[in-house]
Amino acid sequence: MPVGLKAPETLLPVEGVQLAALHSGIKDSSQIKDLVLIELTESTNLSAVFTTNRFCAAPVIVAREHLIENSTPRYLLINSGNANAGTGESGYKNAVTSCRALANFAGVSNNAVLPFSTGVIAAALPVEKIEQAIPQLISQLDSNAWLAAAEGIMTTDTLPKAFSRTIQVDGSSTTITGMAKGSGMIRPDMATMLAFIATDARLDQALLDKFLKEAVASSFNCITVDGDTSTNDACVLMATGRSGVHVSANSSEFKQALFDVFQQLAQSIIRDAEGATKFVEIAVSRAKTQTDARAVAYAVAHSPLVKTALFASDPNWGRILAAIGRAEAEDLDINRINLFLGDTCLLNNGLPDSSYDEAMGLAEMSKSEINIRIELGQGDINFKLWTSDLSYDYIRINAEYRS
Amino acid sequence: MPVGLKAPETLLPVEGVQLAALHSGIKDSSQIKDLVLIELTESTNLSAVFTTNRFCAAPVIVAREHLIENSTPRYLLINSGNANAGTGESGYKNAVTSCRALANFAGVSNNAVLPFSTGVIAAALPVEKIEQAIPQLISQLDSNAWLAAAEGIMTTDTLPKAFSRTIQVDGSSTTITGMAKGSGMIRPDMATMLAFIATDARLDQALLDKFLKEAVASSFNCITVDGDTSTNDACVLMATGRSGVHVSANSSEFKQALFDVFQQLAQSIIRDAEGATKFVEIAVSRAKTQTDARAVAYAVAHSPLVKTALFASDPNWGRILAAIGRAEAEDLDINRINLFLGDTCLLNNGLPDSSYDEAMGLAEMSKSEINIRIELGQGDINFKLWTSDLSYDYIRINAEYRS
Repeated sequence: MPVGLKAPETLLPVEGVQLAALHSGIKDSSQIKDLVLIELTESTNLSAVFTTNRFCAAPVIVAREHLIENSTPRYLLINSGNANAGTGESGYKNAVTSCRALANFAGVSNNAVLPFSTGVIAAALPVEKIEQAIPQLISQLDSNAWLAAAEGIMTTDTLPKAFSRTIQVDGSSTTITGMAKGSGMIRPDMATMLAFIATDARLDQALLDKFLKEAVASSFNCITVDGDTSTNDACVLMATGRSGVHVSANSSEFKQALFDVFQQLAQSIIRDAEGATKFVEIAVSRAKTQTDARAVAYAVAHSPLVKTALFASDPNWGRILAAIGRAEAEDLDINRINLFLGDTCLLNNGLPDSSYDEAMGLAEMSKSEINIRIELGQGDINFKLWTSDLSYDYIRINAEYRS
Repeated sequence: MPVGLKAPETLLPVEGVQLAALHSGIKDSSQIKDLVLIELTESTNLSAVFTTNRFCAAPVIVAREHLIENSTPRYLLINSGNANAGTGESGYKNAVTSCRALANFAGVSNNAVLPFSTGVIAAALPVEKIEQAIPQLISQLDSNAWLAAAEGIMTTDTLPKAFSRTIQVDGSSTTITGMAKGSGMIRPDMATMLAFIATDARLDQALLDKFLKEAVASSFNCITVDGDTSTNDACVLMATGRSGVHVSANSSEFKQALFDVFQQLAQSIIRDAEGATKFVEIAVSRAKTQTDARAVAYAVAHSPLVKTALFASDPNWGRILAAIGRAEAEDLDINRINLFLGDTCLLNNGLPDSSYDEAMGLAEMSKSEINIRIELGQGDINFKLWTSDLSYDYIRINAEYRS
């Protein structure tokens, strides 16, 4: 059951973007969409970041190559149900073949198509099913198909994840709509699970790249479910320019709205994390360096003992303390650490707070949204991440994933 | 259910070592022993390593202080059921008080007593129960009480863990007996959960320190259950010298027997890991550096996705590949990696091996003892660790630990 996450409400079309989604046969059930196409109008600027996992999947390799050759691609071809990862040379060929099939039908060059895949690793991509579905996919292209597309990229997600914003820039209206998928193998690093965000504003390529990098840093790169970085992560930001609105580096309102969409998408992945019963924010403050702040936050977020205590609503804060104590942070002095659950102080300068009692901890831990605040007392650097708990359902989902 | 682990068979007494174990009331059930005493004959050499967790527990602080003041302690006082960690100044006082109570009764100096605790973190140690139990504890001292002592230090362990060896050195017989506890919050680093190993041989202090360091490096520091390093880890090696056998640095047979006991104790912790259904060896070879080899081995061992696949006997080796790919190793080239499950080759120079089929993987993964072999093809450094799978029972045990 997702935590505080509902199905998307109204998703606004983005001028210059059309989408389609259908069932091509990659997934078994004919009820489930598994192939998505995004068509971009000419002269759309696009910026993308990909997984840092060294075993990156074939579609990631091909998408990177195509972007080097062609900075303004026209099509994003996305399948779910099969990651086309760990598939060697034939996997690479399959990714290229699916791009070529679409390019031929649409009358564009091969490198105008970017491939994306998500699903089971190390299984051959049924590329002929993709080829067969292309005519129908193109015929269905529609600017109002964001919800269908958000459904089509899902794997173990229980809900589609998509958000829209409309804002005024210099008196004109412009729209941002984005979608994402992912609920396990989540610890994006310089990238994310699959996420596609489009705006009809015009942003120069350099600014688009800058905004993408900054937005990812404060959204998809601040979430973790299980510490496992996927082989297929990708995040794409597209600006069609069709609204006639030109966004500059000073457009703080646009930047804020864009960052909001990124952060909501990232948080929605955690809210729908595999087996999640809690949505947990871990805020580390007063660290000496960003490295230290991140080390402490991730040590707590990845501790199976902390995660099972969160699942059990057990204020066993000794486990949080033990995780902080083993974090690979350079400047850490236990006698300066303050620890809070919500507004309840647990540790004060490294010692149990005199006002704390178990009932207060239990009340905080019983909430579905939990805030763990760790003040290191070493400097003025802050870092915040979002994570989930570790439940029976995480085990069930991942033990039964291929059966 | 422990994997391939039985209750200890004959445990041999070690001349110069007496033990006692009883129920003092720290744990609720009167059936369960929670207090253990080890008495060492005068002139016993002792070497110890402790947790590297910065939130180390009060007994660890006190034991370190006593060892600095007095290199030949006479008593080890160990309680289970309460870790006396995260307990601040009063925790420190309680550890000192329990040592003093024993020292007064036994007629030794306070610093001749080393305290050890294991159990729930952040609860006050009921030191008066320990004080009350001391006369009975001393009256029960017996050289044949190793099994009772191994039971007395258990927490979530399902079986006591202890091993003995007798060997000939220069034609004379000498004995090594050791016990350990631990099954969760296990990722020792330069130390271990609680482990106590004694021999009646004579080893000079420098050699004893060297052997302990080396033995720990290839045993307790090569295991992980959940990546969580305890606040209370300690490993103590004691040499009474009462057998009259003097062990030198060249006594390879003694060294081998000692290392065997360490490795069997360490592996028995993994075999009895919380919720374990599999015993898994991860062997990384041909790495350029020890750091790289360890980074790869631990990335695989700590991946919740690999651990749930192990639990499910699912040869989803894409998850192993993804974990290797995200390891923080400097020299890693996916095109040089070979991956084996037992004797079955999965990846050959980074590509799926042509002879592999799913049935072979399933056969390997269905075993209760699984060997994952990763050849990096970068150098000649090897590293091996032992770990467990991640099951429903791990969640149950840790979600219900305090309830």
